[in-house]
Amino acid sequence: MKLDKNLKLINIGLENFTEALKKTQTSYVNLDYRPPSAPPELMEILDELASSEKVKKANEEAFKRLNAAQPFLMDLLPAREAVEGLDEGMNLYHAGPPVTWENMCGPMRGAMMGACVYEKWAKNVEEAEEMLSSGKVSFSPCHHHSAVGPMAGILSPSMYVWAVENKTFGNTAYCSLNEGLGKVLRFGAYSDDVIERLTWMHEVLGPTLRKVIAASESPLNVSTITAQALQMGDECHNRNVAATNLLQKELTELMLKTVDDKKTILDIFTFIGNNPHFYLNLSMAACKATADTILGLPNSTILSAMARNGTEIGIRVAGCGDKWFTAPSGMPKGLFFSGFSQEDANPDIGDSTISEIVGIGGFAMAAAPAIVKFVGGTPADAMNFTLEMGIITHGESTVFQIPQMDFKGTPTGVDILKVLETGIFPFINTGIAHKEPGIGQVGAGILRAPESSFIDALEYMEVK
Amino acid sequence: MKLDKNLKLINIGLENFTEALKKTQTSYVNLDYRPPSAPPELMEILDELASSEKVKKANEEAFKRLNAAQPFLMDLLPAREAVEGLDEGMNLYHAGPPVTWENMCGPMRGAMMGACVYEKWAKNVEEAEEMLSSGKVSFSPCHHHSAVGPMAGILSPSMYVWAVENKTFGNTAYCSLNEGLGKVLRFGAYSDDVIERLTWMHEVLGPTLRKVIAASESPLNVSTITAQALQMGDECHNRNVAATNLLQKELTELMLKTVDDKKTILDIFTFIGNNPHFYLNLSMAACKATADTILGLPNSTILSAMARNGTEIGIRVAGCGDKWFTAPSGMPKGLFFSGFSQEDANPDIGDSTISEIVGIGGFAMAAAPAIVKFVGGTPADAMNFTLEMGIITHGESTVFQIPQMDFKGTPTGVDILKVLETGIFPFINTGIAHKEPGIGQVGAGILRAPESSFIDALEYMEVK
Repeated sequence: MKLDKNLKLINIGLENFTEALKKTQTSYVNLDYRPPSAPPELMEILDELASSEKVKKANEEAFKRLNAAQPFLMDLLPAREAVEGLDEGMNLYHAGPPVTWENMCGPMRGAMMGACVYEKWAKNVEEAEEMLSSGKVSFSPCHHHSAVGPMAGILSPSMYVWAVENKTFGNTAYCSLNEGLGKVLRFGAYSDDVIERLTWMHEVLGPTLRKVIAASESPLNVSTITAQALQMGDECHNRNVAATNLLQKELTELMLKTVDDKKTILDIFTFIGNNPHFYLNLSMAACKATADTILGLPNSTILSAMARNGTEIGIRVAGCGDKWFTAPSGMPKGLFFSGFSQEDANPDIGDSTISEIVGIGGFAMAAAPAIVKFVGGTPADAMNFTLEMGIITHGESTVFQIPQMDFKGTPTGVDILKVLETGIFPFINTGIAHKEPGIGQVGAGILRAPESSFIDALEYMEVK
Repeated sequence: MKLDKNLKLINIGLENFTEALKKTQTSYVNLDYRPPSAPPELMEILDELASSEKVKKANEEAFKRLNAAQPFLMDLLPAREAVEGLDEGMNLYHAGPPVTWENMCGPMRGAMMGACVYEKWAKNVEEAEEMLSSGKVSFSPCHHHSAVGPMAGILSPSMYVWAVENKTFGNTAYCSLNEGLGKVLRFGAYSDDVIERLTWMHEVLGPTLRKVIAASESPLNVSTITAQALQMGDECHNRNVAATNLLQKELTELMLKTVDDKKTILDIFTFIGNNPHFYLNLSMAACKATADTILGLPNSTILSAMARNGTEIGIRVAGCGDKWFTAPSGMPKGLFFSGFSQEDANPDIGDSTISEIVGIGGFAMAAAPAIVKFVGGTPADAMNFTLEMGIITHGESTVFQIPQMDFKGTPTGVDILKVLETGIFPFINTGIAHKEPGIGQVGAGILRAPESSFIDALEYMEVK
C-alpha cells in the first residue's frame, strides 16, 4: 500500500486493521465503531480473536490449503462401494446439518421416499413414508461422510458418485450424478419417470462413465475446468453451461475411444447435453475435497462448510471441528418457472453452498452476468455481490479468476470475524424446490446466510 | 431523452445532432466544431449527407436488414459445386480487395502457392510460384463471389465451404473450413503437413459433415450460436472457444446419429476439439450472408464490407455498390508466439473483419474480457472499445447482447459519416501472419481501420 505520509486517516472499526498504516508510518486515529449486526457483548471476543496471532496464522494456513487443492476425478462408482456407511442396511444421506423426520421439509421427505422406492426397499411412496417415519430407514448428513448433495442431496447405496481426490492432501470426496432440472429427485419429485431416470443412471450412465474414466490416461483436474468456465460466463453453482460443455467434451472423447456401442454413447451424450447443470455435482465433490482439508484446523475462524437441509442452515467453522451452528433456513427470492410463485417455495436447501466456501458460486457471480436471467437481479448486482464478498473473505483465490475484474481472484475463505465485524453475510444463489414432496424444482434465486449461526460460532470459539 | 427545459445546452459538431433537442424544446447553441481527422473541404458533404432524409431512411433500412438476418447452415460442400467461378479452370479466390501478384504480400503468396500444390496443379511450390506469377492461375477476391476467407482467405475448387443461407432474404454466402492455428495455409504456410491436413479435410472432414448436415432434421441457426457464445466470453472473431464447443456439440450429436464409423467420428471430434477457432469460418459465412443484404442499398452510408489482403485494406459502403475504397493495410500490435516479434508481422490481412460489420468481433470485445490474453490490452480496454464503437454505429443489435453491459445490444452498422465526424475509426482484432511465405501465424493483435478510405468513400458519395 502506497500512502502519502502527510495524510491523516481515520480507521473505523477494529484497531488491528491499522497495522498496514503503522507500517507506512501514516498518522491515523482509530474510531471504535460497530455496525449494528454485531451484539455489543461479543465485541470483546471478536477483538480478541481478530488480534490473536494464533488465529491469524491458522487463517493464513486455511487460505493456503483452499488454494493448494488439486481435485482430480479418479472414479465414478456406486455409493455403496465408496461412501462410508452405505454398504449395508437401509441408510440414506441427505443435505445440510442433521434433521429429524418430524422436522424435515417437504422436498427432502419426497426425495427420501423416492430413494426408498428406487432402492426397492419400498413398493411405493406410501410404504416408503411409513418406513422412514418409523425409523426403519436411517439417515444422516452427507457432510458427515465426505460427501455432498445438491438440494435434498439424497445419497442412496445404488447411486453412482463422482469420487474426487484432492491430490495435494490425499483425501477424497463424493457427490451423486446430476439428474437434470425440473421434476427430479433432488427437488423432491418421486414419480415413475424420476425413478426410471435414476435406474437408467445406475444401469447405463454410471457404469459406462466409470469404464471410460478408468480407461483415461490422465485423470481430469476439476479445478482446471472450473477456472476455464469462470472465463466463459459460469460461476459454477447456478450457471454451469460452459463447464458442462467442457466436461461433456472430455467424457465424449473418452467414450468414443472406449465404448463400442454407439447408441449408448449417443444416449449419454444427449443426457449430458440436455442438462446444463450436469457439471455441478462434479464441482461440488471437488469443493468438498477442498474444504475438508480445513475441517478442524485449530484456531481458524474460516468456514469449512455451509449447508442447508431445507429446515435449517448450518455452518461449520474450521477451528470448531465438526460442530454445526444452525439457524432456520432463509427463503430465497428469485425467478419462478411458469405456473409457480414465491408461495410455492421451500426454504433454502442443499449442500451446493460448498461452492461459496471455496470462492466460486455466488462469490464469483461477477464472472457470470448472464446468470441474472436465471436467479434474478442485474449484472451490476452480480458484480457488487463479488465485491462485497471480498470484504468478508480472507483473500483472493490464486486458482479462480474473474476476467471482467482484470483477472482478480475470486473472494475465498469466509472469515466469521469479518462477517460479524461488517454485518455482511455470505451471499448464496440457489435452486428453489417446491415446499411439498413430489413436485420438484420451481425456480432459482438468491439470499444471505443468517446472522445467528455466526454469533453462535463466535461464542463457541470463545468458550473453547 | 428527458431533459429539463430550463437547461441551456451547447451542441458541438453537426447541427443535425440537435434534432432531439428541438423535439424537447430545450434551448441550445450550436458550436461548429470538427475534430482534426475530417478535412475541412469535406465538411460540407458530410453535413449535407448527415442531414439528408434519404440517407437517414437508407441507413435505417440497412440497420433493419442487419438485424433481420436469419443465417442458417444449409450445406457443406466442395467450393467447385457452390461458389461461382470455381467449377472450371485454375481459379483461386483470396481475402480483401483485388491485388496483383506483384503487390501481393508474403503470406498470401505462400497460401496461393500451397493451394496450387493442394489442387495438384503444381508439383511443388516453386512450380506453383511460376504458374501464379505468369498468370496461368487467375485469382480474384472472395468478396466478389458471395464468399469470405480468414487471413489469406484462399479458396480453391476442392476445399469444402460452409453454405449459409440468410432465410430472411434468400441469399447464400460461403466460407472455407478452419484448419487450426499456427502453421496453416491461411497464414501462408505450405509445408507437406499443411497440404496433408487440407487433403484429409476434403477427403474425410468435409464429406462426413456434409452427410450429417443433410441428415439433420432442422438446420442450425448460426446467429443463435453466436448470441449464446457472446454470453460465454466469446466475441466470435478472435475468441471462439464457447462457440466452437457449441458447434462441436451440435455436429457430434448429428455424427452419432448418422455416421457408422466410430473412428471417423473420433477423428473429427478431436480435430474440432483441438481448434478453438473452428467456429470462426462458419460465423464469417453467416456475417457475409448478413452484410450482403445491404450491398448496393442506395444512399446508405453504412459499411457493407471491410477486408484486407495484407497489402491494402478496403471498405465498401452500402450506397456505393461494389466499389472498394482502399488504403495501405495497417500493422497490428499485439502478442506474439514464442520466437516471433513485431518485426516478423505482416500488415493486417483477411476477410474476418466481416464480423465487425455485423456488430460482433472487435465491436463486441466487452463480452470477451479474457481475449486480452490473446490479443493484448486489459479487460477495461475491451469494454472501452465496445463503448467507442457505439459512437460510430447506427444502433444496438437486437440479436447480439453483452451481458456485462446489462444486456446492451452490440454496436451495429458502421456509419462512415459518424466515423469522419468523430475521428473514431473502426476497431479490429486479428490474427497476425508472418510476412514471409511458408511460415504461418506468429501472433494476434489489434488495430484501427485507416482514415483515408473513409474520406475517399465520402468524396465518392458526393460525386455520385
